[in-house]
Amino acid sequence: MRGRYKQAVEALCAAQRIVVASHVNPDGDALGCILALAHVLRGIGKDVVALSADGVPDIYDWLPGVEWVQTGTDRRDFEIAIICDAGAFSRTGSSISEALRSAPIVINIDHHLADVPFGDILIVEERAAATAELIYGLIRALSVANGRDLMTKEIAECLMTGLITDTGSFRFMNVTPNTFRLAARLQQLGALPAPIAELVFENRSFSSLKLLGRALASLQVSEDGRVAWAMVSADDFEDLTAEDAETEGIVNLVRSVRGADIGVLFREIPGKKVRISLRARAGGDVNRIAAVFGGGGHRLAAGCSVDPPLADAVTKVVAECRKQLHGLAP
Amino acid sequence: MRGRYKQAVEALCAAQRIVVASHVNPDGDALGCILALAHVLRGIGKDVVALSADGVPDIYDWLPGVEWVQTGTDRRDFEIAIICDAGAFSRTGSSISEALRSAPIVINIDHHLADVPFGDILIVEERAAATAELIYGLIRALSVANGRDLMTKEIAECLMTGLITDTGSFRFMNVTPNTFRLAARLQQLGALPAPIAELVFENRSFSSLKLLGRALASLQVSEDGRVAWAMVSADDFEDLTAEDAETEGIVNLVRSVRGADIGVLFREIPGKKVRISLRARAGGDVNRIAAVFGGGGHRLAAGCSVDPPLADAVTKVVAECRKQLHGLAP
Repeated sequence: MRGRYKQAVEALCAAQRIVVASHVNPDGDALGCILALAHVLRGIGKDVVALSADGVPDIYDWLPGVEWVQTGTDRRDFEIAIICDAGAFSRTGSSISEALRSAPIVINIDHHLADVPFGDILIVEERAAATAELIYGLIRALSVANGRDLMTKEIAECLMTGLITDTGSFRFMNVTPNTFRLAARLQQLGALPAPIAELVFENRSFSSLKLLGRALASLQVSEDGRVAWAMVSADDFEDLTAEDAETEGIVNLVRSVRGADIGVLFREIPGKKVRISLRARAGGDVNRIAAVFGGGGHRLAAGCSVDPPLADAVTKVVAECRKQLHGLAP
Repeated sequence: MRGRYKQAVEALCAAQRIVVASHVNPDGDALGCILALAHVLRGIGKDVVALSADGVPDIYDWLPGVEWVQTGTDRRDFEIAIICDAGAFSRTGSSISEALRSAPIVINIDHHLADVPFGDILIVEERAAATAELIYGLIRALSVANGRDLMTKEIAECLMTGLITDTGSFRFMNVTPNTFRLAARLQQLGALPAPIAELVFENRSFSSLKLLGRALASLQVSEDGRVAWAMVSADDFEDLTAEDAETEGIVNLVRSVRGADIGVLFREIPGKKVRISLRARAGGDVNRIAAVFGGGGHRLAAGCSVDPPLADAVTKVVAECRKQLHGLAP
């Protein structure tokens, strides 16, 4: 690990023109990492371009340095491309991939294990809760190489945003003692967690809350209480002029029903298959259920699509959930 | 501070019969602290009685040692009473106060500053995010006095529960670097935050989620978007056979509407005044608004009651919110 940081630091110190990027549909960890790197590399006099193919979602428009983020560049003179949190090179987005590929050295920093590893220098560590933890390691190594502490309050705020978004404010299974220790150091540098959590989590569109209300009105549980489900109908989307993206998070509330092992959200999208999100409590496995319908995911979170009508999709999927919970052969 | 811990440790080491208690309507910090103390004091051979006047709510019935908690006792032979997280002596509850008062020494451990301080030995520290932080300090001091580390996985789980409940999983303004450092140590001892957060926060009654759905169906925002409000009607409570306590948390979602500075929840309780909860974003002040209607609270969270009918109460309170936001005299 140390060796990989050292390699990255040597390459960065020797270079002048550096491009940093992350994945499409960027979250707080992606943007926090891009901007933390932009701050630190500018701080040691580098020429830095920060790229995000999809720009910056409104809820992150307060991040320090956010004005540096560009959605593309015509430059092809970069010596190094740093790609953070991307999982796979293709996830950086086609509109910026040529600029990234033009750099002779690619540094890949990530807490996802890629199916197809990419990059010339890899700092990839699946145990990290957020890529922000690895960026902090790199900044410490850069500080040593530069003979001064390069951490600032602004960098701390960027990295705290990464930690908070990727751990659901320290609630997810990925949190380690190391995550908490880093949070302590970042707060010591001035990054208060509460305002960041408020900006990230307490910032819902009116229509997304209305959709949540409709979904909860449809909430049902199976006779044994172990499966809870809710629906968003095509009419709901139309009445509220809401989009499917605004249903994010609803399934977690569905699963929070006391006694429910599995939570399911059904979304009826006009002209398409019914979209289904599944969540299990720790110890469960909804990946197997999604797989029955040609979908996939992880043990605790998975998804699939099933032919309409909505009512039939509900019957089929809830029956499958109950089968799996009772350990019967499908 | 050190001195107060030393005093408490000396008293505890010299005593044999100890009663520990907290406040009525106990939360995760109250119960976590009682049980952490019960574990550590039993571990050094003390005779310990753990009291909670209101027992243990279902969502905490998994805490290690929870079977020790009693709702009362006839014993009056205690040498020391330790009262945690109570704010005031009266908050321990009348059914156990006689047993607590019978002890010649009272140790008060709390992160609330009491209006009327009580106890013979006070470990009261307002900067602590949870009383669990202070209990950890006491256990460290007890470990030194006993020449061995008294912390266990069970104690760590009790204290982690206190931290998580009192900080909303590290989201509230009370979090300090010290809170994160303690969380790191507790996880190192085996207390995983994710399952605890799931047990505490992802455990909602079916009717509370249905109530939330009804409330969100009524969600409105003022023309300028700065005030968001929702209602739960007497019919909602009756249809869902739900109680007012199940509306907890709804007002936070109301306030989370993008652009809203103030969130308000109105509850129509048959035969009573309309109950009103107000929440402000950081920097706001809803205490002043509640005070106009004879209520009170803090800058960020306050409450009041207003005469029915519901529609009139809404008109009056929303008008007052808008007045205060626009800085006009009421």
